[in-house]
Amino acid sequence: MNILDIIAKKRDGKELTKEEIEFFVKGYTEGSITDYQAAALTMAIYINSMNEREITDLTLAMAYSGDVLDLSTLGEVVDKHSTGGVGDKITLILMPIVASLGIPVAKMSGRGLGFTGGTVDKLESIPGYNTNVPVEEFIDNVKKIGISLIGQTLNLAPADKKLYALRDTISCTESIPLIASSIMSKKIASGANKIVIDVTSGSGAFMKNVDSAMKLANVMTKIGELAHKETKCIITDMNQPVGHAVGNILEVIEAIKILKGIELPEDIEKIITELGANMLLLANKVSNIEEGKAKILENLKNGKGYEKFVQLVQNQGGDISYIENTDKFNKARFILPIIANKSGIVSKLDALTIGKLSVYLGAGRIKKEDKIEPEVGFVLNKKIGDSVENGEVLGYVHANDEKKAINVLKENIYEIS
Amino acid sequence: MNILDIIAKKRDGKELTKEEIEFFVKGYTEGSITDYQAAALTMAIYINSMNEREITDLTLAMAYSGDVLDLSTLGEVVDKHSTGGVGDKITLILMPIVASLGIPVAKMSGRGLGFTGGTVDKLESIPGYNTNVPVEEFIDNVKKIGISLIGQTLNLAPADKKLYALRDTISCTESIPLIASSIMSKKIASGANKIVIDVTSGSGAFMKNVDSAMKLANVMTKIGELAHKETKCIITDMNQPVGHAVGNILEVIEAIKILKGIELPEDIEKIITELGANMLLLANKVSNIEEGKAKILENLKNGKGYEKFVQLVQNQGGDISYIENTDKFNKARFILPIIANKSGIVSKLDALTIGKLSVYLGAGRIKKEDKIEPEVGFVLNKKIGDSVENGEVLGYVHANDEKKAINVLKENIYEIS
Repeated sequence: MNILDIIAKKRDGKELTKEEIEFFVKGYTEGSITDYQAAALTMAIYINSMNEREITDLTLAMAYSGDVLDLSTLGEVVDKHSTGGVGDKITLILMPIVASLGIPVAKMSGRGLGFTGGTVDKLESIPGYNTNVPVEEFIDNVKKIGISLIGQTLNLAPADKKLYALRDTISCTESIPLIASSIMSKKIASGANKIVIDVTSGSGAFMKNVDSAMKLANVMTKIGELAHKETKCIITDMNQPVGHAVGNILEVIEAIKILKGIELPEDIEKIITELGANMLLLANKVSNIEEGKAKILENLKNGKGYEKFVQLVQNQGGDISYIENTDKFNKARFILPIIANKSGIVSKLDALTIGKLSVYLGAGRIKKEDKIEPEVGFVLNKKIGDSVENGEVLGYVHANDEKKAINVLKENIYEIS
Repeated sequence: MNILDIIAKKRDGKELTKEEIEFFVKGYTEGSITDYQAAALTMAIYINSMNEREITDLTLAMAYSGDVLDLSTLGEVVDKHSTGGVGDKITLILMPIVASLGIPVAKMSGRGLGFTGGTVDKLESIPGYNTNVPVEEFIDNVKKIGISLIGQTLNLAPADKKLYALRDTISCTESIPLIASSIMSKKIASGANKIVIDVTSGSGAFMKNVDSAMKLANVMTKIGELAHKETKCIITDMNQPVGHAVGNILEVIEAIKILKGIELPEDIEKIITELGANMLLLANKVSNIEEGKAKILENLKNGKGYEKFVQLVQNQGGDISYIENTDKFNKARFILPIIANKSGIVSKLDALTIGKLSVYLGAGRIKKEDKIEPEVGFVLNKKIGDSVENGEVLGYVHANDEKKAINVLKENIYEIS
């Protein structure tokens, strides 16, 4: 077997065997297959696509290219994943709730890159919270309190990391087979038996429309089936940011307020009940979706989700006085209001624009090495469909640099019609 | 302009602008565009192809990526090129003839690589012949005696060199737009105004059948038209080797014998008259092909071609006593006959097989750095269609290693039916 024949096969639109796919993934991870050969094959896959069997074999080969987290001592773990978005603090809210309902939560999350945020950055904005713990301690934490949320301390799916970085430099990011195998390989490597995926769709997501989000969802569901990791995908809207807050501390505060029962934005209620109900169903904790949704709302409203969150933060070394009193969190130096310039209905609050402006303010990274400023971002009180008055405050820009805040205000954040 | 957008355009099957193609070629030559980005774009070009305008822009960008030979002081130069083959000594025979007819011949040739031979290796098998002369001397030689054949002493089309080497490692060799632009870029960089191309077709050629050879010919003709370098393509058979000899010294001896009028294999007569007549027509030396063919044969038969060849060798420092008496050339240590194992008609004498066996004997290179043995190869007296008797000598293997010679004889060189 050699890489030239494998490239030629996919170049000509033919199906690759399991062995050929494994040969490529192994060789590329080890370095015997070069970046330019991987680039040529990736482009051929992009253009000529792969069938479900090939995508599954690619997923499994990448999943097993490095460490695979063994969660077998925890019983049946249902993982939750989001394909990324702006203002997406769902993990912070939902995972403590499902943990409070008896599903073990052992989740290694990522950092934000580009316009999408990352759970690890948000967790680390809580003083003392340690996202970097050894695997044994991580699993012990789950055994002890039913939940642990940390960063990727293992070498999970290195083949995917390498291929993902390559795709970015050769215009091969938006390929459904490649996105699906990338997501699923990381999920499988992180030890879940069953997976619920929030497939975001819209300007602030990788999938720009519902049609492509559905295609991605179908492919991932099929991979899950072929790989014996039951997978359920939920498509959610990412044309505007999720909830009201965007930025690390601001999102943590919003998540805490929701868990405390102080507020519950409509979109977040919808997402957590749908994802949560499906997780409960996969875990055989409920017999139908409606029952699942009711359980999620019940443990949100009775404070059990909040209690679990406090327990989580405490267990990871975080200072829970910040959770009890969110006023303790650092604030950005400049908090400037966004004012409506006319009366009407909010017709656009573009997630991608907000995501990019957040990065500009310092909330996110362009390169992996970039440092972030946890306190900056947006609070967007008004959302699409809300009626507003001329001169009304629609939201706030939180910035550490006044010039940047003013530049952001010059942008067309809200469209009113 | 950035390479990611350019890759994405071709990935989606769109047409690249002249500026985008130039941006790519310049960036890749300089190194600001990486090998893996070039690999991705090359694969996208392979799969989604390019139109004639794009191919011409790619050709010109590569042609002008390095030195461009200025032959303007020589008048109208008609170049001749072959897409490669086995036993192809046409340049050695034809170029002295056309030079004797008043067409200036200033040709930089290549070395052999893989199963195809190279004119420079053949010339260097003549003791003293210097293929490595400065450009000024090269042009002076043409002015003085009307002909100079040397190696590539200039940095001609470095972008093509880099892309050609890359294509080899990513299964993107057999693409007509890429082959056509590669050939034409080198021809344009080597200063010709008008070009006659021998497009070989068959097992011993890049183009395995007449259909693909015609496609390549059409594309190159079109490039020539768009680049204002009038180009005429002739399709010739390369299913069996050209003439009787394969191997550097053996081919030089065959060429000398033909120029001396001692022999003239049918296929070589056909090729030199067709190519030569077209060169004369492009140079406005004749008014039709038939007149051109007659002139070529006339100057072959009256010895003027041979005289010009002797002059060429002498002028490049070669020892003409070898030309006058070819017995002086080094001989291989073992010359073993190839014997017919039955009576019948030769039905196959596969050029690719002979080419590969020649490399095995030491006549060619697998890698650029490999040294060659000038005296080894084949003399194939019988060719396809010849009737042979059981036990008759069909040809000879010339080897410096007896074991290799015996191994070669075990191969099925001739098929008789």
